[in-house]
Amino acid sequence: MSAPKRKPTKKIHIGSVEIGGDAPVSIQTMTTTRTRDARATVDQTLALATSGADIVRITVNDDEAADGLALILWVLSSSERGVPVIADIHFRPDLALRAIEYGVQGLRLNPGNIKDTKKIREIAREAKDRGIPIRVGANAGSLHSQFMEKHGGPTPQALVDSAMWEVALLEDEGFTDIKISVKHSNAWQMIESYRLLSQTTDYPLHLGVTEAGTTFSGGMKSAVGIGTLLAEGIGDTIRVSLAADPLEEVKAGKAILQSLGLRREGADVVACPTCGRVEGDVITMANRVEEALALMKTPIQVAVMGCLVNGPGEAREADVGIALTKHGGTLFRKGQRIREVTADDMVEALLEEAHRIAEGVEEERKRLPVVPA
Amino acid sequence: MSAPKRKPTKKIHIGSVEIGGDAPVSIQTMTTTRTRDARATVDQTLALATSGADIVRITVNDDEAADGLALILWVLSSSERGVPVIADIHFRPDLALRAIEYGVQGLRLNPGNIKDTKKIREIAREAKDRGIPIRVGANAGSLHSQFMEKHGGPTPQALVDSAMWEVALLEDEGFTDIKISVKHSNAWQMIESYRLLSQTTDYPLHLGVTEAGTTFSGGMKSAVGIGTLLAEGIGDTIRVSLAADPLEEVKAGKAILQSLGLRREGADVVACPTCGRVEGDVITMANRVEEALALMKTPIQVAVMGCLVNGPGEAREADVGIALTKHGGTLFRKGQRIREVTADDMVEALLEEAHRIAEGVEEERKRLPVVPA
Repeated sequence: MSAPKRKPTKKIHIGSVEIGGDAPVSIQTMTTTRTRDARATVDQTLALATSGADIVRITVNDDEAADGLALILWVLSSSERGVPVIADIHFRPDLALRAIEYGVQGLRLNPGNIKDTKKIREIAREAKDRGIPIRVGANAGSLHSQFMEKHGGPTPQALVDSAMWEVALLEDEGFTDIKISVKHSNAWQMIESYRLLSQTTDYPLHLGVTEAGTTFSGGMKSAVGIGTLLAEGIGDTIRVSLAADPLEEVKAGKAILQSLGLRREGADVVACPTCGRVEGDVITMANRVEEALALMKTPIQVAVMGCLVNGPGEAREADVGIALTKHGGTLFRKGQRIREVTADDMVEALLEEAHRIAEGVEEERKRLPVVPA
Repeated sequence: MSAPKRKPTKKIHIGSVEIGGDAPVSIQTMTTTRTRDARATVDQTLALATSGADIVRITVNDDEAADGLALILWVLSSSERGVPVIADIHFRPDLALRAIEYGVQGLRLNPGNIKDTKKIREIAREAKDRGIPIRVGANAGSLHSQFMEKHGGPTPQALVDSAMWEVALLEDEGFTDIKISVKHSNAWQMIESYRLLSQTTDYPLHLGVTEAGTTFSGGMKSAVGIGTLLAEGIGDTIRVSLAADPLEEVKAGKAILQSLGLRREGADVVACPTCGRVEGDVITMANRVEEALALMKTPIQVAVMGCLVNGPGEAREADVGIALTKHGGTLFRKGQRIREVTADDMVEALLEEAHRIAEGVEEERKRLPVVPA
């Protein structure tokens, strides 16, 4: 199955995670714990990594948060499940310098609210010495007044000019370990901004719709904004910003990448949209199956179809599926019937078959000859 | 606020709803009741229309369903809230002819499963006499074997070839009141198929990801697929196919159009993605506000922000918003503080302000001079 061709960009490294160039599009999210509470923040960070986050951003908004970060980085560095951390810095350059000192893997800086360009240059020098990338960029909501006034509002050109001004500040110090964002809460404005940014620069781009909203409507906005850009080959790392548990952000990010073939991981549940022909409760069943397979890593497609008329045929791409009948369901693999199951056993039978196939896929992979790169 | 420029297509009419040309992108959905149960189907159809569906499709899968359709169309034609109906026909050409006779506003035909081309021509003649448009098109899951074999699978070219073969069948009868779909359950394949179709034809296009899945992950897939195409100017009417209550399909469709500025209707709730700085429960509050404003028609933006530091400034585009504080919240309009509210009164105060603004917007609209077109 193909996927969008991506525009080549400069490659950078956040710890062990590559961003840009030929690297896969990575998923970022942000902790919501108080950073000073190192234990809670480490717990959340590891949970996010387990659920599929490639990089976790942590706010460092005061001295206690910086103290917490020191602890967090130390614990994560000794965890097998460690994940690279980016420190989110606003207003206070000293906190950026502390985060660098503690060994953070990346920085998110807003030069617009740090203001003192001498301090920004100092951070760039320190980050360069340690090989730590910096994300700069503009948010429509906090755009510098000079760019707002020149363009009469947070237009795509205003966002791009602002971001590239920040890039120039870092480049003046010989710092080029950069990624860029131009976020807007309106998906269409965000798309236009990144399209323009992508024409302007070859630095890797961090995509996001800012302040998107609740899980469902914010997820939809983000899918439109981020999805459109990725489908056009634009974007190297993504963050879905939701007013929700950050686990939902990771789930949404995975859904976006999976839908475009940019991440082949986990179960993809297809389900027929229930019509007047349906023999049973497709909705409940599809949701139960999706939930039960949420943590599966192997890429398999599982179908839940409402009737036998077209079910198995329409879902013939599915590795395994069930078509509901008057008395239960018919299990099928790749469009071929396997056996009948009763209504009570359906979900379990389908899940069992899914796990069996997933194991088979893993066995298959192990048998593949190892080809030197 | 701008929106994507759309590719001009031929305009058709489903009852009073225009599709294609300069018409706004319309939202479709499909009933899940048994069509033979006319009462339940009318109830669901009207509920869908009230929630924002522009066109409702109803399956006509057997004789009893056709009997039901006759009743349904008769009741809807006498309802003030009436909405155009499309009959969904598979396998049986006689049911298409009955639907036309009963005054349906549109047909969805699958010539691939009707097979008898004489019958297809007869339907085209009858539909032409009554001015009833027909949607044809291919679904990856039920693609004709001749196109599958030629292209080695349901590739974008196979889907487009199949759809254009169906179009040619109708055109041979002088029938051009057509819209087309090429659906796939994989968003990326679907995007590539419609991109190709849009280059091939000027008929209006009906967009959808087929068998997308559950509300959340199916909604995300659909937002990526449909959203990307709309952002590229492709698509005239949309349907989000979910294994869920069709009201969720309408909600998802509205979210997609709203995010691209293609539909200016209803409240848009923006919310900050909660970080370590948040003073209170943004998540619960944003969800409560969104739910309470779900049926508002006036386009206003409402913000729920977690702190006073950047809240009002970052949400200055919002018509009204609240920034949480240690003791409750600060209400603001367009970035300007109005007053402090206690935690207990916050949601109500915000909603009251939102309704007041919505009324003001409506008053404003009424005062606008009526300009002849």
